[in-house]
Amino acid sequence: MQMERVEMALETALAEAGGPSCPPLLASALRHAVFPGGHRIRPQIVLAVAAACGDPNPGHTDAAAAAIELMHCASLVHDDLPTFDDAPIRRGKPTVHVAYGEPLAVLTGDALIVLAYETVARAFSADPRQLCDMINIVSRSVGAPGGIIAGQAWESEETISLVDYQRAKTGALFAGATLAGAAAAGRDPEPWRALGDAIGEAYQVADDLRDLLCDADELGKPAHQDERRARPNAAAQLGIGGAKARLTALADAAAASIPDCPGVEQLRAVIRAQTRALFPSQLEQYAA
Amino acid sequence: MQMERVEMALETALAEAGGPSCPPLLASALRHAVFPGGHRIRPQIVLAVAAACGDPNPGHTDAAAAAIELMHCASLVHDDLPTFDDAPIRRGKPTVHVAYGEPLAVLTGDALIVLAYETVARAFSADPRQLCDMINIVSRSVGAPGGIIAGQAWESEETISLVDYQRAKTGALFAGATLAGAAAAGRDPEPWRALGDAIGEAYQVADDLRDLLCDADELGKPAHQDERRARPNAAAQLGIGGAKARLTALADAAAASIPDCPGVEQLRAVIRAQTRALFPSQLEQYAA
Repeated sequence: MQMERVEMALETALAEAGGPSCPPLLASALRHAVFPGGHRIRPQIVLAVAAACGDPNPGHTDAAAAAIELMHCASLVHDDLPTFDDAPIRRGKPTVHVAYGEPLAVLTGDALIVLAYETVARAFSADPRQLCDMINIVSRSVGAPGGIIAGQAWESEETISLVDYQRAKTGALFAGATLAGAAAAGRDPEPWRALGDAIGEAYQVADDLRDLLCDADELGKPAHQDERRARPNAAAQLGIGGAKARLTALADAAAASIPDCPGVEQLRAVIRAQTRALFPSQLEQYAA
Repeated sequence: MQMERVEMALETALAEAGGPSCPPLLASALRHAVFPGGHRIRPQIVLAVAAACGDPNPGHTDAAAAAIELMHCASLVHDDLPTFDDAPIRRGKPTVHVAYGEPLAVLTGDALIVLAYETVARAFSADPRQLCDMINIVSRSVGAPGGIIAGQAWESEETISLVDYQRAKTGALFAGATLAGAAAAGRDPEPWRALGDAIGEAYQVADDLRDLLCDADELGKPAHQDERRARPNAAAQLGIGGAKARLTALADAAAASIPDCPGVEQLRAVIRAQTRALFPSQLEQYAA
């Protein structure tokens, strides 16, 4: 149900951008980058937080969820480029640059970033007071100095702090998701940051574990990339048992951090289920 | 004076994004992409149109001018990448990917797009009704289906209409500049589109002429790229005399299109001077 709502919001967002006056290959590449999606975990968080706050403006919520996911898709398209991960597959199919060539992959990422903002502006036109907050939330979670683009840029530095790097590269957009969900529901977003931070770090630890433990078939993308690219990996640093323990602690911290709201219990259950789903199945054999 | 105002607006926009918590190389690459600038023709148009309308909200105007120029800088950084023009120099110095590597060049372009929106949102926070219009103007001039990103994407299509291609690749951001200037001054932006379209087409014809007639030293970037890349070039299609005549007609059309406003005469003089400045000096020997 929530998943259908995310897909519908993304279809709405893409309808005009990829319409008949768009260069046909760009229109096709935009869809390739967005559909079919992965777990859509970030927009689901937007919807879950807004729902916990009563979701008084579903149109705002849909647009916020679409914007966060479009930014995520844009980052995947660019991160997969030959100059970064040089990844041939993503979500089990050829990456955008493999399917459409590198120029269109660069442009697809660019266009998705623009589309994220356009989607929010369109949805908030009747109530522009909240538009400013939403633009700020989205921008901070994506741009410089601390969003996912800056996170990726830390890989070009000679020395990286694992905490700064992962907070920006992965955490920022999860924090953006919880803040956007709260703001879309007309709530003060800032108290929701701790939840996003905890989910983001859990996701990153789980991703690092999967990179270490899984093969490409299971991932739908190349495995063992962190070691190959000499990137910091939490599971390599903490050990697999340590990383498993950290993942459990973060799931608890996430559930405990939820601010007071009408749907706090239901949201807690959603967060617990989602963070549990992050655990790679291979972990069962390792003691925490 | 106007030039200083543009530089100040860009400095303000970059201050936080490139601040101490930003990855240092990304912060440096962001500045490299934006300073020193070229002619800053697009933000000057924003200022000139707003001034002609009385410029009642200078803070809005500054942000709009900065946003349009940041989008332009982002497009230059990405268009210069090896997968597009593979340009070693821009504005007489190494391009961003040559100076900082390709990964940071991709990220710099991405971050500048985000920063453009953030800059507008920050400036319009006290008057969000106009924020929505401004986001829409900026997005349509940059994204899919008809903005400069889509314009670049036409190059990946097998058949290109020269008109659609150039209207999107170059014209869209000039139209964005006139619309943004009018909107920043609280005017209905749409009547200002014809002016932007005419300046944009004039600029494109002049650029095509320069690509044909000038060498790299004069351009501060590689010459004869259109022929090398098999891109449509108006001067090659119309002949140099025909292109010169078209440029003159467009300068007249631009001056004639200016909607009624307090500063119409002064703006007409600015537009005439700017379009005259577009004429490559080599043109004097060619009959129109």
